[in-house]
Amino acid sequence: MTADTPLFERIALIGIGLIGSSLARAVRQHGLAGHIAICTRSAETLAAAEKLELGDSYTQDAAVAAKDADLVVICVPMGAYGAVAEAIAPSLKAGAIVSDVGSTKKSAIDDLGPSIPDGVHLVPGHPIAGTEHSGPEHGFASLFENHWCILTPPDGTNSDAIDKMTRLWETCGSMVEIMDAAHHDQVLAITSHLPHLISYTIVGTATDLEDHLKKEVVKFAAGGFRDFTRIAASDPIMWRDIFLNNKDAVLDVLGRFTEDLTALQRAIRRGEADTLGDSFERTRDIRKGVIEAKQDFMDKEEE
Amino acid sequence: MTADTPLFERIALIGIGLIGSSLARAVRQHGLAGHIAICTRSAETLAAAEKLELGDSYTQDAAVAAKDADLVVICVPMGAYGAVAEAIAPSLKAGAIVSDVGSTKKSAIDDLGPSIPDGVHLVPGHPIAGTEHSGPEHGFASLFENHWCILTPPDGTNSDAIDKMTRLWETCGSMVEIMDAAHHDQVLAITSHLPHLISYTIVGTATDLEDHLKKEVVKFAAGGFRDFTRIAASDPIMWRDIFLNNKDAVLDVLGRFTEDLTALQRAIRRGEADTLGDSFERTRDIRKGVIEAKQDFMDKEEE
Repeated sequence: MTADTPLFERIALIGIGLIGSSLARAVRQHGLAGHIAICTRSAETLAAAEKLELGDSYTQDAAVAAKDADLVVICVPMGAYGAVAEAIAPSLKAGAIVSDVGSTKKSAIDDLGPSIPDGVHLVPGHPIAGTEHSGPEHGFASLFENHWCILTPPDGTNSDAIDKMTRLWETCGSMVEIMDAAHHDQVLAITSHLPHLISYTIVGTATDLEDHLKKEVVKFAAGGFRDFTRIAASDPIMWRDIFLNNKDAVLDVLGRFTEDLTALQRAIRRGEADTLGDSFERTRDIRKGVIEAKQDFMDKEEE
Repeated sequence: MTADTPLFERIALIGIGLIGSSLARAVRQHGLAGHIAICTRSAETLAAAEKLELGDSYTQDAAVAAKDADLVVICVPMGAYGAVAEAIAPSLKAGAIVSDVGSTKKSAIDDLGPSIPDGVHLVPGHPIAGTEHSGPEHGFASLFENHWCILTPPDGTNSDAIDKMTRLWETCGSMVEIMDAAHHDQVLAITSHLPHLISYTIVGTATDLEDHLKKEVVKFAAGGFRDFTRIAASDPIMWRDIFLNNKDAVLDVLGRFTEDLTALQRAIRRGEADTLGDSFERTRDIRKGVIEAKQDFMDKEEE
């Protein structure tokens, strides 16, 4: 595409936090939209977005932003999806695409689907990218480069709409994968949701320590704990919604994890050296796989 | 001190893995020893150390390396401490210092103490530094810079010996803290041992997944899981020994962690949004503390 014929005439971004503002910057940089309409409920955040010149128009009314949009990307916390879908539904024009950037996809379809009018195409998306920072001031155009973006269109979704969303994300630098929503939720429960739950837990456990011990835990945080504090510094509201929205898959992997942890706990209590050594040895294969998938290199850019 | 009068005439390093070889390089770079004697049981590793020119003499016999040494630093896996202490005991000269770099300090004192002759000073140490790589080829002189080194001399230890060890580590760039061994083990159980146990567990849980799911977990490892794979790539033997040696403190914090995780699991199952949001919010303080402790910056150098 060229600057004269952008992929979308008008893109509306509902929500302008870290992901929304990064998408606004990437869309602008790559000339993907003729007009970027920005909407957020908070007057303060909207003013920040305007000051950062992230869009072409600014409103606190989602229906106004969505009017005449060829693409509406919902970038609000997932707990607000239902309300946003209801608000924009009357404004959506025939042929428009509605997408999102949320971390759980079955719930996205459940919450958005019922409000989407016939003739409007729902193509949920999940860019697997982020930092532990929140807010429009922390976004940047290259956030999605060399990161996966998973699209989970329901069966029977218009293929042109899927193609356009694929082009959007690929132009922003992402590698796009099409996946069933339930399968997405299962994979992410392991790669992302469980690690976050555990990180929040261990940092919470440290928070409850006696004061003198807590002070030293902070002082000597190197060697493992620091990584957990970084993960546990992610946006609390976003993560609350993720766990509520992906309950079944999270409880399933959490059950497996707890069983495995209990087995190691038993081996430690009984002093079973071979059980421990063997357990620690076999995890190396996965690490090797992760390196070979070149995921490491990509993550470095995220930090 | 100057090049003419090194802090130690002869330093013997028993074990020449990541930490031992980094210490050899730092000691050499800062002129801390007149002679560096290197010992390791493996002929292959010894040849590698010699090829890397890490020392002035090389032997597979710990007693030979320790003979006439002013300082012996034990850098072998902690499971071998008892055997090494017995082997070097007859060679130790009066006034010599015996130290180590192991991750658990009560067990170091228990395993080394009984063999140390009268007139020899035991000053156990723990440089909180490392990478996920093992072996002499991965060491580097600056590994200890801006990292803590905790010394845990038993009550009544000769203060000159403690001072010399403090100077050694400070010259290598470390910040030195003197601490009770049991207290050290309690702090490290939280900051290091529990995070490693959890990382090994979650990567192990992923290893047991059905093949198609495992493949995708590796592919989409960004967003949390990758950090765990890095931590879980640490040396299995070292970590086996740590959990066996610090059983009580690890089981204690593991118990607290499991209680907290179970509470969050319950909140997810019951859909208790406020409980989850509050839990995730309160962990931010610790993160802030870790940043203020400037630990983050230091850890970056470790990576």
